[in-house]
Amino acid sequence: MKVEQLRINEARLMARLAELAAIGATADGSCCRLALTDEDKAGRDLVVRWMRELGLEVRIDPIGNIFGRRRGNDDGAAPVMTGSHIDTVRTGGRYDGNLGVLGGLEVMQVLNEAGIATRRPLVVGVFTNEEGARFQPDMLGSLVCVGGLPLEQAYSTVGIDGKVFKEELERIGYLGDAPVPLARPHAFVELHIEQGPVLDIEGITIGAVENLQGISWQEVSITGQSNHAGTTPMRLRHDAGYCAAAIGYFLRTLAREMGGNQVATVGKIDLHPNLINVIAARAKVTVDLRNTDEALLQQAEQRFAPFLVQLAVDEGVQIETKSLARFEPVIFDKGVADLIARTAKKLGHSYRPMTSGAGHDAQMMARICPTAMIFVPSFKGISHNPAEHTEPAHLAAGADVLLHTLLELAS
Amino acid sequence: MKVEQLRINEARLMARLAELAAIGATADGSCCRLALTDEDKAGRDLVVRWMRELGLEVRIDPIGNIFGRRRGNDDGAAPVMTGSHIDTVRTGGRYDGNLGVLGGLEVMQVLNEAGIATRRPLVVGVFTNEEGARFQPDMLGSLVCVGGLPLEQAYSTVGIDGKVFKEELERIGYLGDAPVPLARPHAFVELHIEQGPVLDIEGITIGAVENLQGISWQEVSITGQSNHAGTTPMRLRHDAGYCAAAIGYFLRTLAREMGGNQVATVGKIDLHPNLINVIAARAKVTVDLRNTDEALLQQAEQRFAPFLVQLAVDEGVQIETKSLARFEPVIFDKGVADLIARTAKKLGHSYRPMTSGAGHDAQMMARICPTAMIFVPSFKGISHNPAEHTEPAHLAAGADVLLHTLLELAS
Repeated sequence: MKVEQLRINEARLMARLAELAAIGATADGSCCRLALTDEDKAGRDLVVRWMRELGLEVRIDPIGNIFGRRRGNDDGAAPVMTGSHIDTVRTGGRYDGNLGVLGGLEVMQVLNEAGIATRRPLVVGVFTNEEGARFQPDMLGSLVCVGGLPLEQAYSTVGIDGKVFKEELERIGYLGDAPVPLARPHAFVELHIEQGPVLDIEGITIGAVENLQGISWQEVSITGQSNHAGTTPMRLRHDAGYCAAAIGYFLRTLAREMGGNQVATVGKIDLHPNLINVIAARAKVTVDLRNTDEALLQQAEQRFAPFLVQLAVDEGVQIETKSLARFEPVIFDKGVADLIARTAKKLGHSYRPMTSGAGHDAQMMARICPTAMIFVPSFKGISHNPAEHTEPAHLAAGADVLLHTLLELAS
Repeated sequence: MKVEQLRINEARLMARLAELAAIGATADGSCCRLALTDEDKAGRDLVVRWMRELGLEVRIDPIGNIFGRRRGNDDGAAPVMTGSHIDTVRTGGRYDGNLGVLGGLEVMQVLNEAGIATRRPLVVGVFTNEEGARFQPDMLGSLVCVGGLPLEQAYSTVGIDGKVFKEELERIGYLGDAPVPLARPHAFVELHIEQGPVLDIEGITIGAVENLQGISWQEVSITGQSNHAGTTPMRLRHDAGYCAAAIGYFLRTLAREMGGNQVATVGKIDLHPNLINVIAARAKVTVDLRNTDEALLQQAEQRFAPFLVQLAVDEGVQIETKSLARFEPVIFDKGVADLIARTAKKLGHSYRPMTSGAGHDAQMMARICPTAMIFVPSFKGISHNPAEHTEPAHLAAGADVLLHTLLELAS
């Protein structure tokens, strides 16, 4: 069989995804394997067993990242790496990060079965605590891996259950000794479900991810004056509920005016006392602004700030903002992204260049080596939810693109 | 002493208010005497004792309304009536309805002490379950009293605690035999705190209440599509949270454009899942529209409805509305309202004509006889709250205006 004709085994990939999803499965059909819990350990043990069965050399680093290495003909060359994470949020789906890890293992198995040796070594990575659902920040394992956070600082992180990161890592037996920061790989490619609706709606199978949005999260707190909804004339109101509405309306207008990749979301509104006939005394509103361009993201922030100042004056309320998160956009390697697109085309899959709206381990790896991502469609864009779904044919297509992209990079 | 020089006894009024407020007093300084509870019975017993001490003839009707009657020289003439209620919400203040009842008793005592006989009899009424905090609807006692609801229907009402109205009324010993509907009084005047900020902000002592707003309450339910706040382009969103914001923004604009007495409030917003990085799948928004003019209130409703239809189309969401309450405005008797204004002027108090934004027993009495209300300032418009406050001088001023208004009406 010619190398170009190699394809991954869809049934085997689906079987591994199902077996991993059974660990931490909940009654509502979702999957709960919070980082460094017993469920995470069981998932890790299964993946490590599979790695060993595939003949990969398994190493664990001190933050718990797992690396399964397949030898290359030029075994001293910088490896080509893939991977993702297997921890989940509390209501995780079965694909999310698992696809990137198990897709990587499937690639190794196909190469083994075809007796193909690559020039460069290949590595499948499993990064610790990508979700941030138990320990903050998210993408902790890949962040430490690339030298972005000192190990000792990561170790002292306290989880939502009061447990200390290092103690939990030791408890599950995944505090290893592989070197951090990681030696620079030749390239990194992460296969992931889109977690957004673009591919699903457009009917496209493969996204060649060129960049990742910058994120600006703020919490806006408004303090007005609670009063009777009937007896208080409009001109005498200091209505925190109106301010919440005005913010949501303004941000939609702002995103529409800016166009391009700018998105703006008010996903959370809490009014107090939240009663039909009482003007709200207080409101908390979250603001999620994202753009692939740092200058434009700053422009969005800079247009929002004076709007709030004017709103506070006009309504006679106090408005305070607190930054909850701020990440600059990440630009992936154009060469790797183009290779993904070319590979998809060669394999006969529809494809498009695209932007990731979510954070991924690949954004950390992009700090140290040429990196890009392969996306496959998410049904209705749903993820972090038991309804998360991707067609098996799309999962297989993504893994095929991963296979041939890695082969090209490792040659 | 000339009749014009008669004034109520502020200290005695304050003492009675304090004594009644002690029944059902809570740790946070509010007052909890839900209708037909043991606390309500204790409050009623106290008021009835005071009525008897003042020589009033006490009668109870079958819905539990209490009437204390002072004889007139022409004792067969239709009486002039005042009164209010002594039931409270769970976090009631000490004035609210109590002022109207105890202000009425104070007027009786002043007349007794001055040896003044009026031509018409005077009646102080205490209406059952004005608040509606335990049994729905509110203003139940006055509604039944004027023939607006059959007694048997009121009797079968079930409270928030599952208790049946009639059984609770019998239990506390206030199921009486005075005739319902009530024979038409000559006039009805209710003294009440404003429960709004207008008098307080304008520094005016007396409101001569000419009318009462009509109320339109709706609950708007929006069903969109939950999606990732980062990965979902603006054009692909079906954002229930944005719709909630757009509704709040639209209603403020509508109220501003209509001007006059139109008020519009979104006091309650509930998003689901209410997370910073998830486009809301569902929203529930309450809408409180009020106007003193039924045609204008209908106009507000009629402008809101097509806005929702267009919003649903534009955002690709489903929007449903449910009417929660709808009351037409009440216009009080101009003669009585003008008399209140003239009386305030004669007594040297600042005054203004005004509108009630809240519902009161007087709106039921207005169905059977010439009726108006006297308002005194509420500090910052606060009521139904332990912070409810009115200056003693203002309470006394209101009772003085009540005294001389009743004297004029009863002459």
